[in-house]
Amino acid sequence: MEEEEQKKLCFSSTVMVHNIAKRHNVGTLARTATAFGVTELVLVGRRDFNAFGSHGSASHLAFRHFHSLSDAALHLKSRDFDICGVEIAEQSLPVNEHPFRRSTAFLLGNEGSGLSAKECEICDFFVYIPQYGSGTASLNVTVAASIVLHHFGVWAGFPERIRDGNKFIVAEKPLKQARRNYCVENAESIIEERKIRRENNSHDFLDENGTDDSPSNGLDGLFGG
Amino acid sequence: MEEEEQKKLCFSSTVMVHNIAKRHNVGTLARTATAFGVTELVLVGRRDFNAFGSHGSASHLAFRHFHSLSDAALHLKSRDFDICGVEIAEQSLPVNEHPFRRSTAFLLGNEGSGLSAKECEICDFFVYIPQYGSGTASLNVTVAASIVLHHFGVWAGFPERIRDGNKFIVAEKPLKQARRNYCVENAESIIEERKIRRENNSHDFLDENGTDDSPSNGLDGLFGG
Repeated sequence: MEEEEQKKLCFSSTVMVHNIAKRHNVGTLARTATAFGVTELVLVGRRDFNAFGSHGSASHLAFRHFHSLSDAALHLKSRDFDICGVEIAEQSLPVNEHPFRRSTAFLLGNEGSGLSAKECEICDFFVYIPQYGSGTASLNVTVAASIVLHHFGVWAGFPERIRDGNKFIVAEKPLKQARRNYCVENAESIIEERKIRRENNSHDFLDENGTDDSPSNGLDGLFGG
Repeated sequence: MEEEEQKKLCFSSTVMVHNIAKRHNVGTLARTATAFGVTELVLVGRRDFNAFGSHGSASHLAFRHFHSLSDAALHLKSRDFDICGVEIAEQSLPVNEHPFRRSTAFLLGNEGSGLSAKECEICDFFVYIPQYGSGTASLNVTVAASIVLHHFGVWAGFPERIRDGNKFIVAEKPLKQARRNYCVENAESIIEERKIRRENNSHDFLDENGTDDSPSNGLDGLFGG
């Protein structure tokens, strides 16, 4: 048993963000994720986001980008991560029962909709957050992520952050990102992304309401100039 | 033991909101609170807020307003509630250890600052949410509230909301509020509030950054016309 507790200490958690609809939310998600020990966030598909709401936390996080769910899954598997869908499904287990086994990447549904069939396919298991009230159909992505990451940290026995009075201590900013708010890129991946974009006419990059009138929203804004 | 579990089922939880700085947050807080079984939110001090982010949840909640912390505490004590400060303090217990005894009102610090001395005075005990990362000094109010309310629900054994496929079912809107986004008022309390306002020159009604240029922010906007 003691050996098992020892083993847990090597585990880590992350969040997979697949085409998040409100870019704003990546900032608040980053703030929550760092509070619960996440050091690298996995972005799949769209990679442009707004760090508003992160209160500077985004600079303590690495962002790793993949073009497809299967690429992200391969990467996580190679690092011995389970992929856990956060979804109210038949086979979902309550997150407070801590059904974890090893390092875990949590895949959350895009705001307003649950996980798609493609997203469910790469999941090893599912958890859900029990709800008791009648007033809302789902929790927002940051709230859901914070609850599952909190439980993972309790299960894994992560050491608590040192406190200073009534605040947890914030570390010096350890990471310099090449381009603020965007994932670090290399030439090949830019070429690959442009190719994919031409092929599928980039419907993934539409905003939630189906329009895309923000000048900073497309990839041209990202890689041009 | 079984008797104890039975007793727990009668318990309920609420959140005390004292002069919340970003009115916006009351909306997202309302959404989270209803998801975890809260039926009445306690507002102390300022009572004007924006239901943006509530996704309609605000209409499933009652809002009860008090002019002072001591009035709110008296009301809660008369209904046999504990008041639990959510704060990183010496005597705070980790919320995941469920140090609850009866119905509980959670008092959260205003965004950006912890609980004041006056706020701590009315608390029966304190919990905190363990943090593991180095990137942030505190969680936002809605995230903190969602985690403590979630744990209270698990402890109290609240029955889970019926699901429909992968969504929890949303009830018909049960409450009609006399004035949307404001607490129901009577003439005496308006007179009392105006008196208090004259006396303390309403510094509580300033926004977080110390300015107050929103026309809908003051009480005149609330009760005028």
